[in-house]
Amino acid sequence: MALEQDQFASSLLEQAVTELSRLPGVGRKTALRLALHILRRDESEGVALGQAIIEMRKGIRYCRVCHNISEEEICPICADGRRDSSTVCVVENVNDVMIIERTGQYGGLYHVLGGVISPMDGIGPDSLTIDSLVERVAQGNIKEVILALGATMEGDTTNFYIFRKLAPFTDVKITQLARGVAVGNDLEYTDEITLGRSLLQRTLFSDSFNS
Amino acid sequence: MALEQDQFASSLLEQAVTELSRLPGVGRKTALRLALHILRRDESEGVALGQAIIEMRKGIRYCRVCHNISEEEICPICADGRRDSSTVCVVENVNDVMIIERTGQYGGLYHVLGGVISPMDGIGPDSLTIDSLVERVAQGNIKEVILALGATMEGDTTNFYIFRKLAPFTDVKITQLARGVAVGNDLEYTDEITLGRSLLQRTLFSDSFNS
Repeated sequence: MALEQDQFASSLLEQAVTELSRLPGVGRKTALRLALHILRRDESEGVALGQAIIEMRKGIRYCRVCHNISEEEICPICADGRRDSSTVCVVENVNDVMIIERTGQYGGLYHVLGGVISPMDGIGPDSLTIDSLVERVAQGNIKEVILALGATMEGDTTNFYIFRKLAPFTDVKITQLARGVAVGNDLEYTDEITLGRSLLQRTLFSDSFNS
Repeated sequence: MALEQDQFASSLLEQAVTELSRLPGVGRKTALRLALHILRRDESEGVALGQAIIEMRKGIRYCRVCHNISEEEICPICADGRRDSSTVCVVENVNDVMIIERTGQYGGLYHVLGGVISPMDGIGPDSLTIDSLVERVAQGNIKEVILALGATMEGDTTNFYIFRKLAPFTDVKITQLARGVAVGNDLEYTDEITLGRSLLQRTLFSDSFNS
């Protein structure tokens, strides 16, 4: 608390603490701890950290097609001719792209919304890249749009908004991630709504041999 | 876990995540979260963070006298002629200097040890600035050395080591921080050793009117 009016021994330290404390989850006390850690380590390590941040921020832009982060105008995923360009997976953010890539189960393209519709946080459809998605679909090459937003109220709202926006394209299949019992979970730890859905959307047992 | 072998969308992002994850308490998942946060904000903000870290690391050195951080050869505290240069407060690290300065109760100089003796962590007396403290005392201007290390086993060990090193200087008073009931604490939350010490070292009630 008193840290706010602190007299730091050095204005350079104070500046670094101020900038570090802008990071999410980092208060001024944590920022000071991080700064003192950097000071204790080799100069090269601190300089490398600073430079990596600057180079990342200056060098990374967003893919013109899917809005994923990229060093080029078109990201490596969109530019990869071996991927199935007729399938687009709609995700909330850049991190979700990495998470889905890590499953190794998806070979199509992505569309990064940049958030989900959340009136409470002042995020309407216009803050997101939904128009850009509609344009992509309007070009006619896309056969399936997979809605892969989180299973939250905001995610469901956004799913439904996109679903209605894409309704005119009657030949495009719109799917969403299966809801069900998480692999490794007991039934007693699964909520009733999820369990109900997993009953309604039950799958053939023999199908599980293929995955 | 799988994050280790991740294919990041960008080598610049990967580099930044690697550097950020060297910070204490920051794993690769947190580092990725921080990096994506920086990417979402203005370019100027990310660049300011990187530059503040570099400038701090390059610009800050250690005071030749007291080993506190400083932008000059002698830190502002040692250089301040209004401070009582006959009293030296021995602290573990730079943060402790700031903490004591914040009390507004101390007008002497400091000596930053850079740690406490801790054989388990491989920190012996030679890793600390104890020799430099003995040299300062040997110069003859210092009348009191206040041992202000933490009330831990390592702190006590270090206090005793310094006490013995300074024993030859019989005209130098060696004191330590009072142990006692923390202000605002009930007795039932005070451990027995602290309570015992605070009984033995009880102070005149009338003295509390002056503080």
